[in-house]
Amino acid sequence: MKVVKFGGSSLASGKQLEKVFQIVVSDPERKVVVVSAPGKRYSEDEKVTDLLIECADLCLQNKDPKEKFDAVIERYAAIAEELYLDDDIINELEEDLFRRLKADKSDPDKFMDLLKASGEDNNAKLVAAYFRKQGVEAHYVNPKEAGLLVTAEPGNAQVLPEAYDRLFELRNRSGIIIFPGFFGYSAEGDVFTFSRSGSDITGSILANGMKAELYENFTDVDAVYSVNPFIVNRPKEIKELTYREMRELSYAGFTVLHDEALVPAFRAGIPVQIKNTNNPSAPGTKIVYERNNTNGPVVGIASDEGFCSIYVSKYLMNREVGFGRRLLAILESFGLSYEHTPSGIDDISVILRENQFAPGMEEKIIERIKTELDADEVVIEHSLALIMVVGEGMRHNIGTTARASKALAKAGVNIEMINQGSSEVSMMFGVKEIDEKRAVQALYDEFFAAVTV
Amino acid sequence: MKVVKFGGSSLASGKQLEKVFQIVVSDPERKVVVVSAPGKRYSEDEKVTDLLIECADLCLQNKDPKEKFDAVIERYAAIAEELYLDDDIINELEEDLFRRLKADKSDPDKFMDLLKASGEDNNAKLVAAYFRKQGVEAHYVNPKEAGLLVTAEPGNAQVLPEAYDRLFELRNRSGIIIFPGFFGYSAEGDVFTFSRSGSDITGSILANGMKAELYENFTDVDAVYSVNPFIVNRPKEIKELTYREMRELSYAGFTVLHDEALVPAFRAGIPVQIKNTNNPSAPGTKIVYERNNTNGPVVGIASDEGFCSIYVSKYLMNREVGFGRRLLAILESFGLSYEHTPSGIDDISVILRENQFAPGMEEKIIERIKTELDADEVVIEHSLALIMVVGEGMRHNIGTTARASKALAKAGVNIEMINQGSSEVSMMFGVKEIDEKRAVQALYDEFFAAVTV
Repeated sequence: MKVVKFGGSSLASGKQLEKVFQIVVSDPERKVVVVSAPGKRYSEDEKVTDLLIECADLCLQNKDPKEKFDAVIERYAAIAEELYLDDDIINELEEDLFRRLKADKSDPDKFMDLLKASGEDNNAKLVAAYFRKQGVEAHYVNPKEAGLLVTAEPGNAQVLPEAYDRLFELRNRSGIIIFPGFFGYSAEGDVFTFSRSGSDITGSILANGMKAELYENFTDVDAVYSVNPFIVNRPKEIKELTYREMRELSYAGFTVLHDEALVPAFRAGIPVQIKNTNNPSAPGTKIVYERNNTNGPVVGIASDEGFCSIYVSKYLMNREVGFGRRLLAILESFGLSYEHTPSGIDDISVILRENQFAPGMEEKIIERIKTELDADEVVIEHSLALIMVVGEGMRHNIGTTARASKALAKAGVNIEMINQGSSEVSMMFGVKEIDEKRAVQALYDEFFAAVTV
Repeated sequence: MKVVKFGGSSLASGKQLEKVFQIVVSDPERKVVVVSAPGKRYSEDEKVTDLLIECADLCLQNKDPKEKFDAVIERYAAIAEELYLDDDIINELEEDLFRRLKADKSDPDKFMDLLKASGEDNNAKLVAAYFRKQGVEAHYVNPKEAGLLVTAEPGNAQVLPEAYDRLFELRNRSGIIIFPGFFGYSAEGDVFTFSRSGSDITGSILANGMKAELYENFTDVDAVYSVNPFIVNRPKEIKELTYREMRELSYAGFTVLHDEALVPAFRAGIPVQIKNTNNPSAPGTKIVYERNNTNGPVVGIASDEGFCSIYVSKYLMNREVGFGRRLLAILESFGLSYEHTPSGIDDISVILRENQFAPGMEEKIIERIKTELDADEVVIEHSLALIMVVGEGMRHNIGTTARASKALAKAGVNIEMINQGSSEVSMMFGVKEIDEKRAVQALYDEFFAAVTV
């Protein structure tokens, strides 16, 4: 049994829905279809979710939401018309949205969640109607009825553990289940949405709860690339990668799948297949628990800018039990989260995203580290990029580090920092931002040039 | 003005004292001579300090210390005889030691310190007597009279800040000052010794307090080697290195100078010259605040065994503010100090010395990390060696990492871990202990082969 999720661009028009239908019915194992709200049809188009947010904002400001309301309904109506569906379904969606607009607004965040969630919820009803019109048994299933219980956190709901057992019962339903992504219900029966990429999360939760063999995630790219195509021209596609590799890559700029969405599937060991709705015969990329390392040590290279390092040195630092912990506690008290802490004997650098700094915070941090830890030197260096070279195969591969650092040296890139954990699934290089693109290209050439299609 | 310190082997016999005298008088800037207790004359010989410890132990057990007492006095007497000194000085030392034996034993640690300190104290009197016999104005100066105030911690005294100003007054004394190393006096007037290499500490404190231009440390090697001579045959000597380089090297097995001893000199920016009493014309090694990098990026390579890594992985660890700090706090609660914390996105390794583990502690640590931090995986790997490649020149040298890691790869050494801070004064490689010697040799060949004498 497979759980299949389609993203907004896969559901943006009637023509796209026809593709979705063909994909689902071409494999009888595709039992559950998780749908997003209709996305953009062209680059200037508005997503239904964005229209709904504007609509909710107008309501909360006591302004007339009619224009946005109509725009939302118009999107559904256009799809219905394209697919020759009768008016009943559109009337149903219109009534639903109208009811939501009249809901209690005393908690604006809850009201916002109720409106946002309608994008997926109503789209699921529309998709189910279309599937039925095509002569297939298909049922819209509401997350409340299915038992998708979540915490009462607007825009950041977390699935509750008891939801999984209840979702398992969905296996007993007949026909194809069309399930709206992005939201669940609190114990009190209120709608709460997940964070960003919420439909991916829904699919992942359903795959876990229903013990699916595979979670298929249909999007609009053929596969995950081994490197950012804006840096390297026509890079190699990744056929298979592990959760850990995906996670390390997505950390530094890979955004095909939001990594938090994978957690429920990851915990249940269910593989995730990324495929293209517009090119379903392309093999796509499979995210698995373990894989054979047959394609060299490196599976992908990711990079991200906007880091800085706080360098702290103190003679005999190494002898002070608790120095590192106290340093991290100071940063934590400023609400800063950090990425890495490479260290020498008497120095330690803390790497963090520089967008976390509020004005004046840097000076305060330096002051506190100097006085509280009696540090000899505290220096903040800005505009660093982190480059992750990722691959489970690196673990058993003598010389990967040598190849990577030699490639960087040849490209004239100075390595500001290296951090390689004992996991050896990734190697991190810190370089200056101006060197980032050159560094990524050099590493790609070193590890992929020979195997590029 | 220079402070000159001589180690135990430089003062083990009359013949050695003659060398010391010639060295001191050959340079009128050598104003202060810090002396250790007489060391070994041959490899099976006993150091005076060790004899004194045995002597003190016997006293504390209410046993007869006569045999050890006589052995100590015999060492001084042999030197005096060799140098044709008259009996007065030996009688004086004998009386002093005899008085100490009768001191209060209610605090055994304080009694031990009082006896241990006599080795240096009485040797300073002997050396002063010999210098005077040679016709030079030389005065034994007692640390109490000079104001060398320390904390009342037996075997681990710390200099008090007010001592420095008082020691500056020594500049006004006429003649050569012969100053015993290894101990100072508490505010209550009791003797307390420094930790290991205590005479080096005394010299460093005097150099700071007296604002010396140079602190000369005479020992029994020509220079600091660039690598352990037990691993690499006839390695290159280091002419000049910075405090930071010395510190990083001494961390991993370089033991010519105990690094804590350098702190007072380091704080005052006073260079330290290491020289050989038995070959004073050899240039030795100079430890400086800054140096020109004229000899390639790497100044030395050190290695040390006996490390282990605690590998902790948790999916989405990176999003948890405070994860690293809480992990370090758990280790701290076991009294463990750690060396480095290389990390990936969802994993972190803590490198520490494995001799810190008490029996059963490992299991408890793993259990606590798993339950308190909800970690997915906790694995302890043993028998690791850390190799430090050290050099201030690495900072501006593109390609040092590439050269080092390529050399290791060519030697068939798998790099378990890399940690390079943004200071770039050192690069740390973690390897399996069985690979240590091969790795060090390979790195030495890479960075020193062309320049070896």
